[in-house]
Amino acid sequence: MNHRHILLMNGPDHKGLIYLVTRVLFENNQNIIRNDEYVSPSRRFFMRTEFEGDADLTQLTETLRAELPEGIELRINPKKKKDIVLLVTREHHCLGELLIRYAFDELDATIQAVVSNYNVLQPLVSKFGIPFHYVSHEHKTREEHEEALLRTLAIYEPEYLVLAKYMRVLTPGFVEQYANRIINIHHSFLPAFMGANPYRQAYERGVKIIGATAHFVNNDLDEGPIIAQDVKEVDHRQTAADMATLGRDTEKLVLSKALKLVFNDRVFIQDNRTVIL
Amino acid sequence: MNHRHILLMNGPDHKGLIYLVTRVLFENNQNIIRNDEYVSPSRRFFMRTEFEGDADLTQLTETLRAELPEGIELRINPKKKKDIVLLVTREHHCLGELLIRYAFDELDATIQAVVSNYNVLQPLVSKFGIPFHYVSHEHKTREEHEEALLRTLAIYEPEYLVLAKYMRVLTPGFVEQYANRIINIHHSFLPAFMGANPYRQAYERGVKIIGATAHFVNNDLDEGPIIAQDVKEVDHRQTAADMATLGRDTEKLVLSKALKLVFNDRVFIQDNRTVIL
Amino acid sequence: MNHRHILLMNGPDHKGLIYLVTRVLFENNQNIIRNDEYVSPSRRFFMRTEFEGDADLTQLTETLRAELPEGIELRINPKKKKDIVLLVTREHHCLGELLIRYAFDELDATIQAVVSNYNVLQPLVSKFGIPFHYVSHEHKTREEHEEALLRTLAIYEPEYLVLAKYMRVLTPGFVEQYANRIINIHHSFLPAFMGANPYRQAYERGVKIIGATAHFVNNDLDEGPIIAQDVKEVDHRQTAADMATLGRDTEKLVLSKALKLVFNDRVFIQDNRTVIL
Amino acid sequence: MNHRHILLMNGPDHKGLIYLVTRVLFENNQNIIRNDEYVSPSRRFFMRTEFEGDADLTQLTETLRAELPEGIELRINPKKKKDIVLLVTREHHCLGELLIRYAFDELDATIQAVVSNYNVLQPLVSKFGIPFHYVSHEHKTREEHEEALLRTLAIYEPEYLVLAKYMRVLTPGFVEQYANRIINIHHSFLPAFMGANPYRQAYERGVKIIGATAHFVNNDLDEGPIIAQDVKEVDHRQTAADMATLGRDTEKLVLSKALKLVFNDRVFIQDNRTVIL
Repeated sequence: MNHRHILLMNGPDHKGLIYLVTRVLFENNQNIIRNDEYVSPSRRFFMRTEFEGDADLTQLTETLRAELPEGIELRINPKKKKDIVLLVTREHHCLGELLIRYAFDELDATIQAVVSNYNVLQPLVSKFGIPFHYVSHEHKTREEHEEALLRTLAIYEPEYLVLAKYMRVLTPGFVEQYANRIINIHHSFLPAFMGANPYRQAYERGVKIIGATAHFVNNDLDEGPIIAQDVKEVDHRQTAADMATLGRDTEKLVLSKALKLVFNDRVFIQDNRTVIL
Repeated sequence: MNHRHILLMNGPDHKGLIYLVTRVLFENNQNIIRNDEYVSPSRRFFMRTEFEGDADLTQLTETLRAELPEGIELRINPKKKKDIVLLVTREHHCLGELLIRYAFDELDATIQAVVSNYNVLQPLVSKFGIPFHYVSHEHKTREEHEEALLRTLAIYEPEYLVLAKYMRVLTPGFVEQYANRIINIHHSFLPAFMGANPYRQAYERGVKIIGATAHFVNNDLDEGPIIAQDVKEVDHRQTAADMATLGRDTEKLVLSKALKLVFNDRVFIQDNRTVIL
Repeated sequence: MNHRHILLMNGPDHKGLIYLVTRVLFENNQNIIRNDEYVSPSRRFFMRTEFEGDADLTQLTETLRAELPEGIELRINPKKKKDIVLLVTREHHCLGELLIRYAFDELDATIQAVVSNYNVLQPLVSKFGIPFHYVSHEHKTREEHEEALLRTLAIYEPEYLVLAKYMRVLTPGFVEQYANRIINIHHSFLPAFMGANPYRQAYERGVKIIGATAHFVNNDLDEGPIIAQDVKEVDHRQTAADMATLGRDTEKLVLSKALKLVFNDRVFIQDNRTVIL
Repeated sequence: MNHRHILLMNGPDHKGLIYLVTRVLFENNQNIIRNDEYVSPSRRFFMRTEFEGDADLTQLTETLRAELPEGIELRINPKKKKDIVLLVTREHHCLGELLIRYAFDELDATIQAVVSNYNVLQPLVSKFGIPFHYVSHEHKTREEHEEALLRTLAIYEPEYLVLAKYMRVLTPGFVEQYANRIINIHHSFLPAFMGANPYRQAYERGVKIIGATAHFVNNDLDEGPIIAQDVKEVDHRQTAADMATLGRDTEKLVLSKALKLVFNDRVFIQDNRTVIL
């Protein structure tokens, strides 16, 4: 029987890398469905190969590693849905978008649970029969709150955390536990207007375009690798509140787009940038 | 005979302002072609009225001023082409765009001259029969250079200066002489990536969208009121040089769009923002 | 106490129309919040005036009508939510979008019921506590089915019908009952690719951009006045199925945008075109 | 010494095609800079490989052909500028755009000449020192006119003809002589509004978006494979003339984008669609 697999490679460029991989797959009777590669200006090689076959993935990985030059990272994933937990605060637009997609099997992921520091979104989540955990931050230090979050997450062991308008800063200690596995939607067109109330800032600066940015979270707030961005035109008639309303549509679609890319193993992270194949 | 005129009003909001102006125009037998107004959240009133008729503009202005509450700015311009001078350095894309438009009478302005601190664009300008002034900044202090520029500009007394990729910072003293009459095209999507080499910064940040911003110049570099912005999608395959190439198309169209708005008296400036009617 | 009202005017242009209306509102102590007008190339005048005050709307309307030239349509609506019924078939994306917005009071309308010729979307609708009517078309003539629909609609007497991916053609007799009050989202960028399976057509034509169109429904299928459109870039890698998936995001946002405009009384219909003020 | 080359392959898919080509290039000491491939839903394989080396291209092509399965088209081009002739009528915007790009070496092509059935654009072309041929269609049958065009083109033997707003229909006989080598810019968003005066049609239909389409020319008017498209938002305030003005900016940029793709050997034609690698 034929299964679909995704091979991901990332390392210093060498002559013949594509040839080597395609040869080994050919010799192991695997059929390449789609192959994409990219060599960065600094001569770093990235390749994503989607292939079909009934190979033993462990053995195939070992065969390839034995032939590849040193320093090349290699991973072969079976093509399958990711397990995810959503973190939210009080805004519903990104959550609603993801729940509707999930309800109709369009998310390429299984939402194991929704966790929030408020309980206002519990009624919405319950409509969809998904566990909702209310983990308040009140009367807790940041560390105590994050420990409570981590205990909740430990129930599910998700592959990815999605911050679907989770409005609290995460500590480096927390982020480290999910390195390169936390995706955030930023209410602004990064690198512009970082920090609080970006639509107020955008209004006061009189911008003619607003946007949103989905990115991985690292230790620098709002500074992780960008996955997707989009924009919308505005004019002087929009108040800061209008911009926020308009911005929400952009936010939810940009987040959905970024998740689709990540959950399909199409996103490499390198030097605070993403390579999307 | 009927001429086209543009009335511009700007001040604190009062009940009945539209009524007052439309009454006076009606009584003076002027025909309103288009009327746009806007009241800002801070209750400031803006109105642009395009009308036709053979009125004595000075007298009409006086009649209106006599009836208007205190603190309202009023101006009536005959609808006509603006006189402009272009300042450029070495990049040709915005200049080329404006020259072609001018050659076919699409600019709503008369290009009186092009002034540059380099002479590399002289051959292009000469093709179009427009005076080119080479005012080098070499061996001059910033003040000496600007004095030389001002002497050149004094020949033409332009209504607007267009910085069509003029790559030198202007001093507050210079800017003051052309307050709210200098338009710049910024090689970035403000407020992002201010300063030198924005496309290198954009590349390193791994953005998925680049843009350009046309704005009035005031004393804070790159901080004047924004007139127009636009963006273009990029991905990891674009180098900083590719982004710069792509960015040029955006720059030249954004500048053209902004000039069309300004030269048609559609742009008000208020609190570092523009209101465009 | 102050209420918000919307005055809508539409008719042949005459000198002094703005003046007349603003004078009457002024004399009746109403405060204009926002005024927009437009004169078409064929000299037809449109005006939308949002104002505040405690006027008797019936009397105000009469006063204005008495002074207006013949042939000018005038209507004053209190600013309030519209009553609507959604018609759907089997696709969930537009319905899901509208339900989430409605659940958080962002729709400027009250969804009275959802009516469908299939029962597959009943579970989704029920989550939101909204009546769902399954009116199958099986074993019915088109006329019998529409009679059944009309009986269901008669329960609610909605102001607008929203075809949120309702995949059946409506007869002229049905449309007439809701003239200019039925809004459809078309799965294509009109006027292109009319009829069945537009994404298959788009794929085969190799287009680089797909889109969606929200429009009023009239007797010519897919030919009513356009309210809003938007597009998304595609390339050769997208199959017809991929385009359909991508198209759904555009469809749901274009429909939402169109509904916001209609429900805020901002859309005039004239000669198969819309004027949006 | 190292030269840059582009290998283009197109045919029925077979297992191991990428492997075969990368092996032969590897064995011949050629270095792959960029490789892109695509397999269509109907299992047709496309590959574009950019590589560097000092190989004898004829021999390399033969070596590859000997190993490839039957029915696969293969071509290896040295990476170099294309020779082109522009055909124009009376509109200047696309011509102006291409001339400015050419003057600053941004076109990836050499403009050998401009040919027109009117002489109004001769002054613009002359500014740039490019031969201009005025081949009037007056008092000529379509066939006589095309014969005159072909005689003029025979002087230059261009690789591509660019119809930069050439407003006459070409006969199948003419098109055949430059099969898949004629690029046109269409003043509309295909497949919409074919035929004359598309902006008038767009205005009357009340569209909210207008666009332009660059495509190869084949025997069906406006029906050749689409290379690039772009759009711009409009509203009811734009007249048909305004739309035409706005449309010109889109047209010139879409044409420039399409030419860049074609001149860099990135465009395959298959079944009236393009595959762009």
